[in-house]
Amino acid sequence: MGPVSEDDLIARWFAPIAGPAALGLKDDAACLTPPAGQDLIITKDALVAGVHFFAEDAAASIARKALRVNVSDLAAKGAQPAGFLLALALPVETQASWLAEFARALGEDAKLWHIPLMGGDTVKTPGPLMVSITALGFVPQGQMVARTSVQPGDAIYVSGTIGDAALGLQLRLNPERFATLSDEARAHLAQRYLEPQPRLALASVLRAHASGGMDVSDGLVGDLTKMMTASGVSAQINLDLVPLSEAARAAIAADESLLETALTGGDDYELLVSIRPDQAGAFEAAAARAGIRVAQIGHALAGQGASQFTRSGHAISFERGSFSHF
Amino acid sequence: MGPVSEDDLIARWFAPIAGPAALGLKDDAACLTPPAGQDLIITKDALVAGVHFFAEDAAASIARKALRVNVSDLAAKGAQPAGFLLALALPVETQASWLAEFARALGEDAKLWHIPLMGGDTVKTPGPLMVSITALGFVPQGQMVARTSVQPGDAIYVSGTIGDAALGLQLRLNPERFATLSDEARAHLAQRYLEPQPRLALASVLRAHASGGMDVSDGLVGDLTKMMTASGVSAQINLDLVPLSEAARAAIAADESLLETALTGGDDYELLVSIRPDQAGAFEAAAARAGIRVAQIGHALAGQGASQFTRSGHAISFERGSFSHF
Repeated sequence: MGPVSEDDLIARWFAPIAGPAALGLKDDAACLTPPAGQDLIITKDALVAGVHFFAEDAAASIARKALRVNVSDLAAKGAQPAGFLLALALPVETQASWLAEFARALGEDAKLWHIPLMGGDTVKTPGPLMVSITALGFVPQGQMVARTSVQPGDAIYVSGTIGDAALGLQLRLNPERFATLSDEARAHLAQRYLEPQPRLALASVLRAHASGGMDVSDGLVGDLTKMMTASGVSAQINLDLVPLSEAARAAIAADESLLETALTGGDDYELLVSIRPDQAGAFEAAAARAGIRVAQIGHALAGQGASQFTRSGHAISFERGSFSHF
Repeated sequence: MGPVSEDDLIARWFAPIAGPAALGLKDDAACLTPPAGQDLIITKDALVAGVHFFAEDAAASIARKALRVNVSDLAAKGAQPAGFLLALALPVETQASWLAEFARALGEDAKLWHIPLMGGDTVKTPGPLMVSITALGFVPQGQMVARTSVQPGDAIYVSGTIGDAALGLQLRLNPERFATLSDEARAHLAQRYLEPQPRLALASVLRAHASGGMDVSDGLVGDLTKMMTASGVSAQINLDLVPLSEAARAAIAADESLLETALTGGDDYELLVSIRPDQAGAFEAAAARAGIRVAQIGHALAGQGASQFTRSGHAISFERGSFSHF
């Protein structure tokens, strides 16, 4: 990149996309006046090239993914975004053109999700690119949607479709397994891996109707198990009800072992929520008004036993509960 | 480290040191109710092995440094710490014993600085260890001490002593330059590089008396220039007044070129503050009560010209204004 100071880099690429709390990125810290009666929700996700994305992915896609996985966490908690801080560890060989594109896409995406850049830190690294984002949001006091509050009898829902991103990753790694798919189907899966779509439009719906929730980032089966365990319950899940895209259906029809990939792979960034039975109708109607598809896949049971998964009426067990980055 | 999941890692090492806002680190996000009438101050600093510390440094020292550079930013803004989030990118070869020691020291230090762990993310990396911390604090509304509000005529002060850490780094890199120093002096310099001492005891003093402030992380000369530029003023600095430790004096006496290292090197984590002339006495008295030495080194001038540095009555210029990690 040549001899560019951190200050120049900030002034050139990041100050133009910063929000008012960033104070022009001229200070050591951001300053935000919390709205009265709101709780602050804070989340932090780090992404490393070669682990969470491919180093050769477009700078714009990396920027969007890094921001959106954090927006997804806010959405799952029912929070409205307030801002984010960016830590960027740049390999020494980073090109100015890469950084320009990263910042441009990040600024656009920050507008799209109403989450202004508030500050951060830029450092060089002898290792791979790493993007660590801390996102802040607000919920009315006491209304955070927790992972720990699923109740026995609650209906379990997921948003959107499950497995596309995990299949998109497989497509990158083993394209021959997807040879029979249409170009359109392949593009759909690849894009879902590359750039998640956080379900922020459901944040207020979750606050109004959900007893518990989290985003599905490490695979549906594993994350569901996590949420049930954290709530001291278990679940009965009918895998026939798990919503799959046409592209995912086509991939699984061609290679049935990809069903497990879809159900246990990561990077969905869909929402997994529990809804008291008397709220189910109102929840479905509100989600429809928000324009996001939701599907009931089962319900919560009393007791901390293992969650049960069935397919075509038969019990299913999974070798690997979830994708773990460890 | 063997096959340990991120959840196991969090439960084993980080949940025990987490504060209440972390919700047992069982959720996607932390939840904090902001106190009424306070502004939220947020800062984020990332440290990379081989850039900001030595990979072979003790895990405890790396933990303390990563936390303290963020506490130092809060102190400079006049903020009281509220909590922090940790993103940890661990090389695959990381040992469990390393992680145990890192978490133990981090937990102890979090207690020392009253800044509980609230959440974060742990990922693996094929590259060097990276620690990115986001620290949150509060100040009474409108009272953040800004970098941009130095006024002409203000007295410029620094806390503690300047240059020890930069000399400590030189000592690590070129020990032969410090051959004439006592063991005690060498240990002092090394320790100041390894583990900064954030001047948190001055946070409330700054709120009460400072017109502007920042922490000195990239070298006194460069950071002073930054603060003056951000405030639209310049400064007249008498380098004879810059407080140096006995160890730093001994090092400079043996090798005069180390003076520039001391004045332009990084990692001081002292506070650089501007004080209206009518507040100087009260500021000095309050700092003395807080047990932290402060020294006036010059004053701010109207106009955006280059800041002037003198030594023994002669003007001095610096080749490199500051240490930059780029």
